[in-house]
Amino acid sequence: MDRVLRIGLLGCGTVGGGVVTILDREADDITARTGAKLEITRIAVRDLAKVRGLPIGADTYTDDPLSVVEADDIDMIVEVMGGIEPAGGYIRRALELGKPVVTANKELVAAQGPELYAAALDAGVDLAYEAAVAGAIPIIKPMKESLAGDRVTRIVGILNGTTNYILTRMSEEGADYDEVLADAQALGYAEADPTADVAGHDAAAKCAILASLAFDTAVHFDDVFREGIESVTATDIRTAARLGYVIKLVGIASEVDDRVAVRVHPAFLPREHPLASVRGSFNAIYVEAEYAGELMFYGRGAGALPTGSAIVGDVIDVARNLLQTARGASETQHRAKPIRPIDELQTQYYVLLDVEDETGVLAEVAQTFGAHGVSIAQVWQDGDADPDADSAQLVLITHRALESNLRATVEALACSSSVRSVASVLRVESEVFAS
Amino acid sequence: MDRVLRIGLLGCGTVGGGVVTILDREADDITARTGAKLEITRIAVRDLAKVRGLPIGADTYTDDPLSVVEADDIDMIVEVMGGIEPAGGYIRRALELGKPVVTANKELVAAQGPELYAAALDAGVDLAYEAAVAGAIPIIKPMKESLAGDRVTRIVGILNGTTNYILTRMSEEGADYDEVLADAQALGYAEADPTADVAGHDAAAKCAILASLAFDTAVHFDDVFREGIESVTATDIRTAARLGYVIKLVGIASEVDDRVAVRVHPAFLPREHPLASVRGSFNAIYVEAEYAGELMFYGRGAGALPTGSAIVGDVIDVARNLLQTARGASETQHRAKPIRPIDELQTQYYVLLDVEDETGVLAEVAQTFGAHGVSIAQVWQDGDADPDADSAQLVLITHRALESNLRATVEALACSSSVRSVASVLRVESEVFAS
Repeated sequence: MDRVLRIGLLGCGTVGGGVVTILDREADDITARTGAKLEITRIAVRDLAKVRGLPIGADTYTDDPLSVVEADDIDMIVEVMGGIEPAGGYIRRALELGKPVVTANKELVAAQGPELYAAALDAGVDLAYEAAVAGAIPIIKPMKESLAGDRVTRIVGILNGTTNYILTRMSEEGADYDEVLADAQALGYAEADPTADVAGHDAAAKCAILASLAFDTAVHFDDVFREGIESVTATDIRTAARLGYVIKLVGIASEVDDRVAVRVHPAFLPREHPLASVRGSFNAIYVEAEYAGELMFYGRGAGALPTGSAIVGDVIDVARNLLQTARGASETQHRAKPIRPIDELQTQYYVLLDVEDETGVLAEVAQTFGAHGVSIAQVWQDGDADPDADSAQLVLITHRALESNLRATVEALACSSSVRSVASVLRVESEVFAS
Repeated sequence: MDRVLRIGLLGCGTVGGGVVTILDREADDITARTGAKLEITRIAVRDLAKVRGLPIGADTYTDDPLSVVEADDIDMIVEVMGGIEPAGGYIRRALELGKPVVTANKELVAAQGPELYAAALDAGVDLAYEAAVAGAIPIIKPMKESLAGDRVTRIVGILNGTTNYILTRMSEEGADYDEVLADAQALGYAEADPTADVAGHDAAAKCAILASLAFDTAVHFDDVFREGIESVTATDIRTAARLGYVIKLVGIASEVDDRVAVRVHPAFLPREHPLASVRGSFNAIYVEAEYAGELMFYGRGAGALPTGSAIVGDVIDVARNLLQTARGASETQHRAKPIRPIDELQTQYYVLLDVEDETGVLAEVAQTFGAHGVSIAQVWQDGDADPDADSAQLVLITHRALESNLRATVEALACSSSVRSVASVLRVESEVFAS
């Protein structure tokens, strides 16, 4: 008879429901693949009265998560509550008790990942978190295992579906940010309070997790430089398109001279880059490795069943290990690598200026860039500007420049008498090339 | 002190050299990640006299592969000889001796995969073959492990770099097949005898391996319907572009009513599809799964270091398992599922006809399609045809039709007095949509 492995589920919202559904529908195949029956034995929920319509007996539910973690009849914990506490406490307790944990909690892993990996290693049990980054896309496991003999040099990810949906629609419809956001909210693609998505918090958490894994170091959420998409305009997107770029919210992590640089912000990507064709709410992670070269992983970053699929994949892995008293691959011991400040970034920039429509303006602007050590690659006056107006728009693309120099340039421009306003400043990631 | 795991390498060509190089350069990190020193203890080569310039002692080499497999001091075999025999015999012998095997041998796995998986399962050791499909791209492991709780419904892969390179250049330069092939040969992107690539053999082997894994059944190389790219013309590519498609050599595997359909052929793919933007010698595998939804895995399909990276990833996995006396995930027991004949395929088709330039031709052609149960979605006379000539070109796109009906239509057209020749017939995969 097949052995039974008993799962304690912490949380039963959308994603938890997805997990229950998949484990129920695929029970026979999963037993064939693992040699064990995987049973959801206990579920901790906040509201016992809520009707969930899941194929689970009513006596499975409890409102006491700690009782689930500590129950003798629970072999494995699946945490889908979200939030740092109390979820973190339950996970630490489970590990202490020698129970492996599967979690989808990006906030927690981004804040305390290295500490949790160490706790799991000490306890000799698995801590799996595939679902914490980019939903259904297998990325944690490929990075930890498939690339275990390689050396990741850079990661560029579209890690948030809501912002990619908004930017895709702005790009394809020529629409403005506010208009598309309102529509996305009406359609349920964006939350009523969209801050976590549009300000880049969600992407920053995922980027911290990936950077930790890629560079064997502890990158926390707070280490990630972050700018959101709130100020990206239809003009920016149109200008990018004219130059052969698309604007995407990207998380970029790289290791430079033993320091780790991690940033999330909207950026110009060349139209030919594989990430440029990632549309709508899809996510994708582009990985550059020393030997493997360029890799990309693409798929759905959210949703009950996609996220559930990733969690169930982890559950099966953990089950296989439990049955063999083995343990999956560990994160490598975390070396302390300093975080490179954003000021030291070198990249190209796009700058859009509203200027007085008079002779000499370009010379003055160019002089300001030059005085701050920023060299201009392309400049032109925007053709869309009203010919009758006394103002004009100048579009500039710089050569690679130091972020601090660019910032000083922009500050000087903002004070210049011929510049009415600095309308936009965005980073241009031309070096992110597919060859 | 770290334990030493001793590797016997069978073959030391380009890919073998890549494996040796990576294991040497990354030795410290790999030891940190596995807790063992991985040492290449013996290497079987065909020509002992050849100078290889690898960081390996001369006494490591032998020209007797069986002695490597059977040596008491060898813990694990890495096979990069290629070819079905004698490689298959050495692998079976290693498994018999309880030694895990890592192989990059797509021919062998496509021909005998299920038998080899069973032998490894019987022996209780790992057989890993990530490098056999799409080089550096992690796809075998994600399919076996990350998607273990899911249900793959369809795979569409660009599985051969040479043909994708040729089609990309034809598409971007408007060049003809022969011209680009010759250039690809001169540049080393295509072999002097390019048959294995351009006729789709290589892609078919990889497609058989993926289909076996996806659908838990034994799909052999011979089960794969196969057409190459030799007859794709610059006109086909131009016509596809005009209609919003690109032409790619794809491997498509799906399960339909408990039968498995597996085919490799050039196809029209919608320009918006993520596979359409896979350029040059890159590979990509698009996977549709019941819960995860659409996934894509992209990267380098060949090359010493990319393939070496995949092999070393497998070696590290196998090492971790050896150290824990554990075993990685197995292929699921293979259910016998019949192969659906290509005649029963239903898809759309593109047909290019050279016809007499006279009235009534279209009516006759349309009548021929209709008589065979094939309905026309779009038709027009090609604008590029010479206005002074007495011939014209008709381009037709059908609605979904049965392959056997389409073939009967084409045979009838070839005999029709107003049709000079059927210039091209290609499948149109409009349903392969990114949503």
